[in-house]
Amino acid sequence: MNQFVFFGGKGGVGKTTVSSAFAHKCARAGQEVLLVSTDPAHSTADVFDQEFDDDPRPVEGYDSLSVMEIDPEQAVDEHLMGIKRSLGDQVSPAIVNEIDRQIELAHRTPGAHEAALFDQFIEVMRDADAFDRVVFDTSPTGGTLRLLSLPEYLGGWIDRLLEKREESVKLYERAAIGGREPRRTQVGDPIIARLQARKENFEFAGETLRTDASFYVVLNPDQLSVRETSRAVDQLREYDLNVSGLVVNRITPEPDAEETGRGARYLRDRIETETQRLREARESIDPPVVATIESRVREVKGDILESVAAELEIGSE
Amino acid sequence: MNQFVFFGGKGGVGKTTVSSAFAHKCARAGQEVLLVSTDPAHSTADVFDQEFDDDPRPVEGYDSLSVMEIDPEQAVDEHLMGIKRSLGDQVSPAIVNEIDRQIELAHRTPGAHEAALFDQFIEVMRDADAFDRVVFDTSPTGGTLRLLSLPEYLGGWIDRLLEKREESVKLYERAAIGGREPRRTQVGDPIIARLQARKENFEFAGETLRTDASFYVVLNPDQLSVRETSRAVDQLREYDLNVSGLVVNRITPEPDAEETGRGARYLRDRIETETQRLREARESIDPPVVATIESRVREVKGDILESVAAELEIGSE
Repeated sequence: MNQFVFFGGKGGVGKTTVSSAFAHKCARAGQEVLLVSTDPAHSTADVFDQEFDDDPRPVEGYDSLSVMEIDPEQAVDEHLMGIKRSLGDQVSPAIVNEIDRQIELAHRTPGAHEAALFDQFIEVMRDADAFDRVVFDTSPTGGTLRLLSLPEYLGGWIDRLLEKREESVKLYERAAIGGREPRRTQVGDPIIARLQARKENFEFAGETLRTDASFYVVLNPDQLSVRETSRAVDQLREYDLNVSGLVVNRITPEPDAEETGRGARYLRDRIETETQRLREARESIDPPVVATIESRVREVKGDILESVAAELEIGSE
Repeated sequence: MNQFVFFGGKGGVGKTTVSSAFAHKCARAGQEVLLVSTDPAHSTADVFDQEFDDDPRPVEGYDSLSVMEIDPEQAVDEHLMGIKRSLGDQVSPAIVNEIDRQIELAHRTPGAHEAALFDQFIEVMRDADAFDRVVFDTSPTGGTLRLLSLPEYLGGWIDRLLEKREESVKLYERAAIGGREPRRTQVGDPIIARLQARKENFEFAGETLRTDASFYVVLNPDQLSVRETSRAVDQLREYDLNVSGLVVNRITPEPDAEETGRGARYLRDRIETETQRLREARESIDPPVVATIESRVREVKGDILESVAAELEIGSE
């Protein structure tokens, strides 16, 4: 199986539960596992009854499981501070204020969080040599996936920017210091370096996500969720990503055969509807259903994690 | 009650069900109602068993209910085409290609959809004189709400752009036609007009959302949903929006008193957990719970709509 595993799906379907159970299963099978949580509610802290932060921290009671939590709000702040710092060194003080203004504005753009989060994903993937398996409790979707097509798209544009930049560095150098050899112009030019690094970063992400990542979509057995999953699978495939299967979470449990009251009728009727939705999902969505997980009475944590992991028929090998 | 009513909350909690039931209730009370759906799965078509599009269409079987469906994907396309057209007239053909490229790029930015959708909301609100009540099956959140602060934020910036633009128009006019009076410069300048319209548009949105709109957050009785709702309420309040209440959807129904099997135990345990989550919601989140709606066996449509509307204790007056 690939080193990177993403559990996507809409909010509330149970991605944190499923990815925690999968990380648990891989760690129990002896793999060195990192679980990356992006849920701003930090529910991995509830699942493992332990606080985490944005560095990988070993989970108590496990030999080879670490968790890190990425806070999208904090990610976007750090992202923008990074840009401020690197630009602040490059431009005249006169326009620093104008740049600050523009950056603040960018912060207010819808989507800034998704973009910053994606940058953090790339950073985690680049720095994952110590782990056999890195499990993400979300998956890039719509707007973020579009960033994967930026390298091809921006290719020509960045090349032209680089040419312009080289020209202006050359001109500047000639004007300032006369007849010296122009060979040193590019060496260490930090703006050129930054543009190239950026393009290269997205290329790395595209390549890694296409060749060393598996994507699962978590859904619930209802009409809305089935439709959304169909769209999510199409989006992932549009970017040539490898959708390995569907995980159906929150299946209603069966009553005993002899139960006949209002409660039992409600459960049987629900199960009938869910079975039909599940059939529709199998018929209309291509990747196979690799796991079905029963609804629990309470939020999944501790002991329940082990039993959910057992229902998760995704191999850890 | 205010003319505009928004039902926010995470995907999958049942916003379309709740807003359809509320629109149904207001229409049955004799109000002229428009239900605006933004769900890309177009589930209002299922609820009312009728196809809709992006113009308000009367719903069969009602005297005063219309539905329109906004497709975010299509909204972003139209939005960008509009920008292309208006810029295409203003700039030299030489840079039209570069602008096309930039606009394509903007299309690929995460958040472009949310921004385009918000523009459409504003358009609907501007054009709603025929309706007593306009019900939206979603609410602006995070990134989109930030757009509401753009007018104050952009105020100074746009003013400076306007000054620059006026200067350049004046210079251009003097250079081109010598000593003529410069009084006509601003009249009909389409770029100035566009910038001012844009700023004014967001000001209108902020004003209307603050003074003539009610926001409800739909949630389910589980820990994740309660926490997300708490955050959503804080976000809305941060922008001085009027959060009128919480609608708790998907409450597990009770079994009969004499039921004792595995099914009945499951339901009772679930109800106990849900009761606790509901108590936490009431304690930790400020706006009142204005409705609790029981889980249905199937997706809500037709007859079930009437019974859900009856459980919805939000006054239509």
